[in-house]
Amino acid sequence: MKLATLKDGTRDGQLAIVSRDLKTAVMADGIVPILQGALDDWPFIAPQLERAYNDLNAGKAHRAFDFDPRHCMAPLPRAYQWADGSAYVNHVELVRKARNAEMPESFWHDPLMYQGSSDDFIGPTDDIVLGSEDWGIDFEGEITVITDDVPMGTTPGEALSHVKLLMLANDVSLRNLIPPELAKGFGFFQSKPASSFSPVAVTPDELGNAWQEGKVHLPLRATWNGALVGQPNAGVDMVFHFGQLIAHLTKTRNARAGSIIGSGTVSNKDTSKGYTCIAEKRCLEMIEHGEAKTPFMKFGDTIKIEMLDTNGKSIFGAINQQVAQNAAKS
Amino acid sequence: MKLATLKDGTRDGQLAIVSRDLKTAVMADGIVPILQGALDDWPFIAPQLERAYNDLNAGKAHRAFDFDPRHCMAPLPRAYQWADGSAYVNHVELVRKARNAEMPESFWHDPLMYQGSSDDFIGPTDDIVLGSEDWGIDFEGEITVITDDVPMGTTPGEALSHVKLLMLANDVSLRNLIPPELAKGFGFFQSKPASSFSPVAVTPDELGNAWQEGKVHLPLRATWNGALVGQPNAGVDMVFHFGQLIAHLTKTRNARAGSIIGSGTVSNKDTSKGYTCIAEKRCLEMIEHGEAKTPFMKFGDTIKIEMLDTNGKSIFGAINQQVAQNAAKS
Repeated sequence: MKLATLKDGTRDGQLAIVSRDLKTAVMADGIVPILQGALDDWPFIAPQLERAYNDLNAGKAHRAFDFDPRHCMAPLPRAYQWADGSAYVNHVELVRKARNAEMPESFWHDPLMYQGSSDDFIGPTDDIVLGSEDWGIDFEGEITVITDDVPMGTTPGEALSHVKLLMLANDVSLRNLIPPELAKGFGFFQSKPASSFSPVAVTPDELGNAWQEGKVHLPLRATWNGALVGQPNAGVDMVFHFGQLIAHLTKTRNARAGSIIGSGTVSNKDTSKGYTCIAEKRCLEMIEHGEAKTPFMKFGDTIKIEMLDTNGKSIFGAINQQVAQNAAKS
Repeated sequence: MKLATLKDGTRDGQLAIVSRDLKTAVMADGIVPILQGALDDWPFIAPQLERAYNDLNAGKAHRAFDFDPRHCMAPLPRAYQWADGSAYVNHVELVRKARNAEMPESFWHDPLMYQGSSDDFIGPTDDIVLGSEDWGIDFEGEITVITDDVPMGTTPGEALSHVKLLMLANDVSLRNLIPPELAKGFGFFQSKPASSFSPVAVTPDELGNAWQEGKVHLPLRATWNGALVGQPNAGVDMVFHFGQLIAHLTKTRNARAGSIIGSGTVSNKDTSKGYTCIAEKRCLEMIEHGEAKTPFMKFGDTIKIEMLDTNGKSIFGAINQQVAQNAAKS
């Protein structure tokens, strides 16, 4: 099943069911008005959405219309929990190596996660509005999951049964704000502005065999200003699967329905697969040439993040955004 | 105006209007069902709630009932944004001093804030359920504000007009998890479990002259296992007022309606005022005796956090909780 949230001028938008081929959609308003409402009562709501989805795919839906990702908000335009891991430890190691710092060995068995901000997510084709290019604007291509209620103390194995939906994310980062902010000791804050999500959220069964043991075994494609710069396989070099990330989140707390958990920047050790964030490219340049040559994003730059199935069909639709300057002072 | 959220078995509870003396209440369901709904449309909703509040205080409300804080959830049982500052820099300096570390001078003019988790807040009289005493369970008495929509790039002066409500908070901290977590470099995560909030949220006018220039000029009282251990004045030694904290939050992002911003542990340089978190007491012991003597909280411990007006009347009602062990593995 594939679900999208359409812009209607409200904060939460309107839930729509989208066909498997992303060509048509039908409003879910006869079932539930918004995605958070569906997640709050998933066992009751999901089967009803699933029936409508099957009708839509069979061409039997009433009042179906053409699906246009430009009308989409993030599937959850605002959420109660956004916790982002760094499951591709290779990426973390590379960043450290570039600044001649050793990565603690514990990073290979204790997940690194940060608490993200979730009140103002960006739609898949909306501009990334920021105050200054000097902040070092970067994209980060990620896989994310949405859970139902996960109780405190859930094990990694149990946690996987709580994954209800998956999305792609662009976890925008402000690289030049990160070093002084992390030096303060309390983690990311201003350096992690609003994140963007794919047009649709999909149930795990939509991934077929590509969803295995809490990982998505398909390449994530990042296209920057029209050039494909990365296509690392999200199932390769993911040191912690989503069950482990969810268990890390719920060690000392409950995670409630609609919690979004991110994989961190998808990254393969095989550098021929390219990059899904500029920082990684710059780290490789630092290590090879002693200096970073690739600049961060400028106003007007575009970034497209997408995942295709083995038949070359888009699963989640594309995050397809432009960076724009905030009109207000910053 | 004073607002509470009453338990009704749902995730968001039911909004109630509470009398100034906290003795009676009336359901707000004829106006708006939940507090987030009121914040989403504050200019339209607030005057209606205000009229019902005036009727209630005048003894003219229909279907008023006795107000009982034990029936309260947190005013926002789940929120989209919870950003917590460390505005009482004295406290930060003390913590550093206790471990022989110098605090950067920049901490006096650049606010320290962390991104909190907001999907599962605890009601004012609900147990603080945690997995292990070994985690170093501590309370933290704080003042918090709730905003309407605050655009990116808002100045500290403008930001104050976005404060719609205030609450008290118990920002529970797991002290023994903090050092290894901060050493990982990404900030607090497992060390900051679910926070608790006061029975009612109040509009700034309820504080009268005590609300001045973005600070609350009244003592915050912390009572641990029945003993008053702290009553520092929240208006004293608050280096950053709430406008500055909100502006820090919105430098690189919008903050949306219902965002909660915290002051950090209230702390006065005058140590005769006691403490609103155990860590501070332990730091003072470290500095004076070379070792911390006061233990952290045990299962069964109680903590009460309250603020009285100049006539000795409770403004927000009391956070009044017990620490309990999680039944599940942890």
